[in-house]
Amino acid sequence: MSGSGFGKQFHITTFGESHGVALGCVIDGCPAGLPLSAEDIQVCLDRRKPGQNAAQTPRKEADRAEILSGVFNGVTTGTPIAIITRNTSQRSGDYDALKDVFRPGHADFSFQMKYGIRDHRGGGRSSGRETVGRVMGGAVAAKLLSEFGIRVEAYTLSIGDVQIDKEHMDMEQRLLTPTGMPDPEASKRAMELIEQCRKDKDSVGGVVECRIGGVPAGLGDPVFEKLDAMLSHAMMSIGAVKAVEIGDGIAVGRRFGSENNDAFREDSSYVNSITTATNHAGGILGGISTGGEILLRAHFK
Amino acid sequence: MSGSGFGKQFHITTFGESHGVALGCVIDGCPAGLPLSAEDIQVCLDRRKPGQNAAQTPRKEADRAEILSGVFNGVTTGTPIAIITRNTSQRSGDYDALKDVFRPGHADFSFQMKYGIRDHRGGGRSSGRETVGRVMGGAVAAKLLSEFGIRVEAYTLSIGDVQIDKEHMDMEQRLLTPTGMPDPEASKRAMELIEQCRKDKDSVGGVVECRIGGVPAGLGDPVFEKLDAMLSHAMMSIGAVKAVEIGDGIAVGRRFGSENNDAFREDSSYVNSITTATNHAGGILGGISTGGEILLRAHFK
Amino acid sequence: MSGSGFGKQFHITTFGESHGVALGCVIDGCPAGLPLSAEDIQVCLDRRKPGQNAAQTPRKEADRAEILSGVFNGVTTGTPIAIITRNTSQRSGDYDALKDVFRPGHADFSFQMKYGIRDHRGGGRSSGRETVGRVMGGAVAAKLLSEFGIRVEAYTLSIGDVQIDKEHMDMEQRLLTPTGMPDPEASKRAMELIEQCRKDKDSVGGVVECRIGGVPAGLGDPVFEKLDAMLSHAMMSIGAVKAVEIGDGIAVGRRFGSENNDAFREDSSYVNSITTATNHAGGILGGISTGGEILLRAHFK
Amino acid sequence: MSGSGFGKQFHITTFGESHGVALGCVIDGCPAGLPLSAEDIQVCLDRRKPGQNAAQTPRKEADRAEILSGVFNGVTTGTPIAIITRNTSQRSGDYDALKDVFRPGHADFSFQMKYGIRDHRGGGRSSGRETVGRVMGGAVAAKLLSEFGIRVEAYTLSIGDVQIDKEHMDMEQRLLTPTGMPDPEASKRAMELIEQCRKDKDSVGGVVECRIGGVPAGLGDPVFEKLDAMLSHAMMSIGAVKAVEIGDGIAVGRRFGSENNDAFREDSSYVNSITTATNHAGGILGGISTGGEILLRAHFK
Repeated sequence: MSGSGFGKQFHITTFGESHGVALGCVIDGCPAGLPLSAEDIQVCLDRRKPGQNAAQTPRKEADRAEILSGVFNGVTTGTPIAIITRNTSQRSGDYDALKDVFRPGHADFSFQMKYGIRDHRGGGRSSGRETVGRVMGGAVAAKLLSEFGIRVEAYTLSIGDVQIDKEHMDMEQRLLTPTGMPDPEASKRAMELIEQCRKDKDSVGGVVECRIGGVPAGLGDPVFEKLDAMLSHAMMSIGAVKAVEIGDGIAVGRRFGSENNDAFREDSSYVNSITTATNHAGGILGGISTGGEILLRAHFK
Repeated sequence: MSGSGFGKQFHITTFGESHGVALGCVIDGCPAGLPLSAEDIQVCLDRRKPGQNAAQTPRKEADRAEILSGVFNGVTTGTPIAIITRNTSQRSGDYDALKDVFRPGHADFSFQMKYGIRDHRGGGRSSGRETVGRVMGGAVAAKLLSEFGIRVEAYTLSIGDVQIDKEHMDMEQRLLTPTGMPDPEASKRAMELIEQCRKDKDSVGGVVECRIGGVPAGLGDPVFEKLDAMLSHAMMSIGAVKAVEIGDGIAVGRRFGSENNDAFREDSSYVNSITTATNHAGGILGGISTGGEILLRAHFK
Repeated sequence: MSGSGFGKQFHITTFGESHGVALGCVIDGCPAGLPLSAEDIQVCLDRRKPGQNAAQTPRKEADRAEILSGVFNGVTTGTPIAIITRNTSQRSGDYDALKDVFRPGHADFSFQMKYGIRDHRGGGRSSGRETVGRVMGGAVAAKLLSEFGIRVEAYTLSIGDVQIDKEHMDMEQRLLTPTGMPDPEASKRAMELIEQCRKDKDSVGGVVECRIGGVPAGLGDPVFEKLDAMLSHAMMSIGAVKAVEIGDGIAVGRRFGSENNDAFREDSSYVNSITTATNHAGGILGGISTGGEILLRAHFK
Repeated sequence: MSGSGFGKQFHITTFGESHGVALGCVIDGCPAGLPLSAEDIQVCLDRRKPGQNAAQTPRKEADRAEILSGVFNGVTTGTPIAIITRNTSQRSGDYDALKDVFRPGHADFSFQMKYGIRDHRGGGRSSGRETVGRVMGGAVAAKLLSEFGIRVEAYTLSIGDVQIDKEHMDMEQRLLTPTGMPDPEASKRAMELIEQCRKDKDSVGGVVECRIGGVPAGLGDPVFEKLDAMLSHAMMSIGAVKAVEIGDGIAVGRRFGSENNDAFREDSSYVNSITTATNHAGGILGGISTGGEILLRAHFK
């Protein structure tokens, strides 16, 4: 396999290149009976759409989601859900200059070494546009998880040296700022930094944090399919991610066990009446969820 | 599946609990014709053995590797290689006090929530002894990789606030110091820290770094099976790891692209006559190896 | 997963329902560098198209293959190849009468029991139209195999009690007769039988035979991934197939070993200078190809 | 992978050669809480043991099952269950004559072509002794299924031209006759045939039938993971099997749909109050169980 599938029960396969005919996702294993419409996917595609603001690549793509299968009378049937979006700006000519160039920091060279051939138009399959298929799968996954009260919230923690103020962050704002930062003031400074980078023909890294709430205790498998191992796999598979942290992450290596451990305490508001006083572990122990909030960070170059 | 398998072509399945009858590993997919003896595995088992020094859990285990299948006349036959080691100190009684206790920072609670039952003896399957099976599989993998000139070298970078001096490290020493540090002086200080922790009934975190040399350009798959994603999955699946970095890792999120990118340059000593002037990316671009040294770090609590 | 994927190195995922928006296939793992056009797939889709003649369901479908990804400048790039065809006759109304009916011999009842919901239009995902995705994947597989000199030829052996005359069969004819029989005379009688069935509002079973030539010795894996086991899996996964035979198939159970075994003989025209005097085994021994012709039969109700 | 694993939720990996150190099975995915002892596996190993009577290879093997992991205080813990049995008669010397011989009808030649090396002692991994690992896995599976009221009963239907009398078969007898036939009279004649074969240095084929009762409607997945496709895969992966039938099997290809279809009828004794008047389909429609008895046959050379 060429590595375009992910997941066990809920398995997605994505396809499509930056300047090919279409990008898409096939979801195999979504349970029957979930209400699903193209609009559910569209909301998420719109959120990832570049060119909305000065922060991202200024390319115009309609990115209209079309569901090809797996939904009947507005609900899923348990059969595979195929979703596509057609590329509307296939201006291959724009990229002819890149045909014989290996861009530093990109996958041009490694793809050429692996396949002996590559779609040089905008990076082809290695383009950031590859995430369109992930967003489609993620939109369906998020809808399914919400049926079980599980909420996934991701936001930008920092861009270059501009960090959000965690004491005063407003989660609603993450969907409104052009940077995805839940802090309009930090977002404004980050946009200025990005604008300066653009002028300098440079780019800048950043960190995304993700919180998953409502996860019951007992999810995940031991040993090689630990919940944190699967999440790290998924995060690191996103282009440009070079580090992943769970809970307190890299801080744990410098600390004592007495600082890293979370004491259990009784709390009848939890299903099992047990929770932890702190959450250094990020909601996962031994690869299995504890019922606490799952916390992870991905570092992008 | 309960998550005890890993790998595609070279697939391992591990089994065994801390105080069960035996621990082991089945390797399915090792090519035929590789010279292999129990001694090859024993060397690696000895290296992980606790109780060698004051740095680790003072438990005595003989851990003798026995090959049950897959090897005929001293070479692999292409059929599954099963390797086991019997537990010699199954003192279940020692752990009766833990039967009804959920230890903070351990998997006792999450296992109980998942399975409704658990082997409380020394953590059972969630014990650090689970890595015996990994070491067996790794010993065979390392031998196979060495046939292709690929060298995997891991060492301890830091323990608590004690770091090695990267300017003067001596890789031979990593196999001689009780800490795995390639720096005897730092190792001595780390041992003092560990000894103090033991007195305080505490523990301390640390960081392990791994360098993989001799990897040809073009290995790994795009999208979900990126080489760095697979390596992160594997690293994060080791108990107590809370963060994984590739190349410059978390540093990239604070930097500009011009700092993170590695310029290509011609060098006829490389197979493809192309290498990079720097290696911020840690030998992987777009999830595929570049031919440069692969560098990763795992942060343990 | 809901079972819509098949294959290890060359992995296909199919999707689509009989009267949904589109049917399709994503091929993950096709090597880079294979010349491929929509026409290559169209030839195979046309061959499976019903309504060509009186022998099959008289439904008109254009079934135009469209390649969405994975092909650049006329050759595959190693990235996933998505192919779709849109359904042009989505006359759901035609099937309203079937909404509350479980048709005997169909999957209506079992799907309802599994999912609690079903797309009743023409059987939905359980329709024979599901094979459109397989044909797309098969078209690419056949083109890839032909690069290695491997030829796959399937034909109808019998329909009801009408059998072809194996002494005088003409393989070219299998693509010309409406029944797929390589024997025009038998095909004519089979068509009369089918026409009578249609008048009687009945249907009739049949047997398809497949020969695979040019397979080198040594393909397939032992134990659970035997080549014949994988082929049986694939054959039995086709709707209405109730029996699969390899080589002499059911005849072997009534015979002596001396009758079933194929004596080896030297023949310099074979790569390894070894072949068998007979081929009762159908080209597979111990689940691994022998270099002889692979022969299998699928029995349809 | 070298093909030694099978199953998705309940996954087994087998290992071991005919004359190696040990044979075994690792079961990954067995739920926690199932009572399990070595005796449960021993009963099944004893049943497959050759040398019990004149019908099988007259080799003496103690085949004592030892559980290495996954069971604590007499019940499964959800972690992998490893089971082994040591080979007691590793008389390699007996097989030296076979070192340079490709036995017709065996896997010697195809293994040599695939691996370039082979364990020639008694066929190595391709020996019938490989089924020891399957029997171990099957013993645990059968125990687990019995908790859900699912019964798997297999018996010998015919050996050469000797068939059981299906009108008068006695299922208890299948465990008592040396042939596994539920018909002592037919078994006696079959034993005479086998004895004659032995004198003639020949062997003889046979057919095994399997009935699975108590299966609820709705099990199995559509398309490529149809329940009958998975069962055929499993059956055909057993050495010497050359044909697999579900329900009426090969008979369906010669019949009309009106003969093959099973009319539904109401019957309040079934969970869903629906069953079929006949069971030509063998309990599976569209790859999903109907609630009727599953019936399959494997033809051995």
